[in-house]
Amino acid sequence: MKINNQHYRTIWVKPGDAGTIQIIDQRQLPHELVIEDLRSVGDVERAIREMHVRGAPLIGATAAYGLYLATREAAEGAAGLDFLRKQLDFLRAARPTAVDLHHATERVWTALRAGESAAERISLALAEANTLTEESVDHCRKIGEHGLPLIETLSRQKGGDTVHILTHCNAGWLACIDHGTATSPIYAAHDKGIDVHVWVDETRPRNQGARLTAFELLEHGVPHTVITDNAGGHLMQHGMVDMVIVGSDRTTRRGDVANKIGTYLKALAAKDNQVPFYVALPHSSFDWTLDDGLRHIPIEERDPDEVRKIRGQHDGRIKEVLLTPAGSAAANYGFDVTPARLVTGLITERGVCPATAAGIGALYPEKTTP
Amino acid sequence: MKINNQHYRTIWVKPGDAGTIQIIDQRQLPHELVIEDLRSVGDVERAIREMHVRGAPLIGATAAYGLYLATREAAEGAAGLDFLRKQLDFLRAARPTAVDLHHATERVWTALRAGESAAERISLALAEANTLTEESVDHCRKIGEHGLPLIETLSRQKGGDTVHILTHCNAGWLACIDHGTATSPIYAAHDKGIDVHVWVDETRPRNQGARLTAFELLEHGVPHTVITDNAGGHLMQHGMVDMVIVGSDRTTRRGDVANKIGTYLKALAAKDNQVPFYVALPHSSFDWTLDDGLRHIPIEERDPDEVRKIRGQHDGRIKEVLLTPAGSAAANYGFDVTPARLVTGLITERGVCPATAAGIGALYPEKTTP
Repeated sequence: MKINNQHYRTIWVKPGDAGTIQIIDQRQLPHELVIEDLRSVGDVERAIREMHVRGAPLIGATAAYGLYLATREAAEGAAGLDFLRKQLDFLRAARPTAVDLHHATERVWTALRAGESAAERISLALAEANTLTEESVDHCRKIGEHGLPLIETLSRQKGGDTVHILTHCNAGWLACIDHGTATSPIYAAHDKGIDVHVWVDETRPRNQGARLTAFELLEHGVPHTVITDNAGGHLMQHGMVDMVIVGSDRTTRRGDVANKIGTYLKALAAKDNQVPFYVALPHSSFDWTLDDGLRHIPIEERDPDEVRKIRGQHDGRIKEVLLTPAGSAAANYGFDVTPARLVTGLITERGVCPATAAGIGALYPEKTTP
Repeated sequence: MKINNQHYRTIWVKPGDAGTIQIIDQRQLPHELVIEDLRSVGDVERAIREMHVRGAPLIGATAAYGLYLATREAAEGAAGLDFLRKQLDFLRAARPTAVDLHHATERVWTALRAGESAAERISLALAEANTLTEESVDHCRKIGEHGLPLIETLSRQKGGDTVHILTHCNAGWLACIDHGTATSPIYAAHDKGIDVHVWVDETRPRNQGARLTAFELLEHGVPHTVITDNAGGHLMQHGMVDMVIVGSDRTTRRGDVANKIGTYLKALAAKDNQVPFYVALPHSSFDWTLDDGLRHIPIEERDPDEVRKIRGQHDGRIKEVLLTPAGSAAANYGFDVTPARLVTGLITERGVCPATAAGIGALYPEKTTP
């Protein structure tokens, strides 16, 4: 997608320097566009853990390149493999909830193990990370194609009036490599001339909505309005939301959805007001080993200071301000689980399906048939 | 209640200066304790509109004193009454949702009209504002007495383990004159030695929870943890909330509750997880003229900059930072309506009742019987 009318992805190998991966440091957006160089597996782990990059598909791709960078630091033979196994675990521990991190590193790990020399492992790891990244772009594009008819139908039902879509957090191109998951159908609809408007949940504590989704939509020219996370229920009660689309960090094979904290509250409000609630995700965000999301998806707890403090722009510079009394404790749960019963449907790269074991199984028989 | 172990109310007549009303400027809390002088009805209107004071009962009391200050500016006879009628309307327009503003000014207006001279009107208005304020303190204290057994029961059921109570916004003593509404049973329980812990919703956009409720609880020594508005659903799903108590800006005679935006989302989550959801309010927060809250309670829309920007402390000073892209629009709905079907009970100064026309009518027959 575009920033200042120039095309960007969120991650790429630095041209002419295969030892450097470049990312957009998303902590500085929307106020500054900072490109960051990652030169080691340590750089990558920190970029994931400290959320220079975030979003399930992008975490996956970044970790894939992280394991590739690790191959460049690894010795020959078994010692090299031992080292790489440790780096694999190191990367996987950076963010516990997003399952893409597990899947992406598994793919690169499997690929590189076929290498007989350190040089071959480097080559195989890079190729796999590149392939995975291209696939991710393609999957996001297809999510847009499959989600588009849902928006077209609403637009038709409204006689061409504006279709109001609420989204939570950032499941946009900044959370992926390009296009986004939740935003991909929105971009597709907007580009096709359908009148869409997006209610952007600010998504405390890290404000990925207010900072990143708003930034993306603004740069692409999609009409949008930032709201507090508290506002969505009121909007739905008053018929001001036609549809909700969110992303997912991990979805179980029966359709329970782990996503950014607060998603569950929006799903409840959607159900209470008969607003369709869709989750857009590529197959890499499914956890094929889990049924019960509430009981079995690990929920990351992050630094309470992310709640107590917030960063924003003051006099042209980014500053962090304290919001709470200095003596008050805070807690910071990163995700919640929306039970499948609240989800109208899943929008995947293979099509739209009900959030049920049968629905998901019909789209992904090779993953779900024992 | 106490700040630095010194007793405060939120509003008082300045000792030795009957022409000055003093308030705590709540915009500066928790970082600074600023006492502000209000010397005219214009000062009062601005203090209400710009939220130097806020909270339904405190808005009511402040407006009552505002009308008293207006009597000091009013001429004799009919011209004086005309002036006061205009000031009454001026004050009522400052915040549209809180019905206490209407009730309190009505009481002072009725009282002052019995005066035959400008001096008598001044005297009658001050007396009524003082009476109303003392009654408000008494009502809040009684809300604590009536809510206490609900917490005691939970504590017994848990064998004395910590009772976790979630609250949204600030319905504490800072929203009232003293004690608070939602917090009054909590203070009563804590003071009685019951082990309580409060989950404090930060309450974007103005963070009355993170700033004010946390401050109050900290000063009173009540264990508490600040959370984002997004987190409550997750906590309830995992059995980490035993009870929700919130306040109300306007409750209809059949029990629909207008309260700070986001309350409805917590009520939905409480229902979905069988967590009791209580609303604490004095009779002054009932609107006896309304049935259907969703259709008939006016919902205030405030400056979108309250969403786009936030104030906090940086290097010992209060600074405002921009959170969104400069070009993104924002919307700022101040309240939502929680339908009575989601409310377990109302805690009033007369006792606890179901959120139904019959329940409310049984406590307030003189208000609800035609």
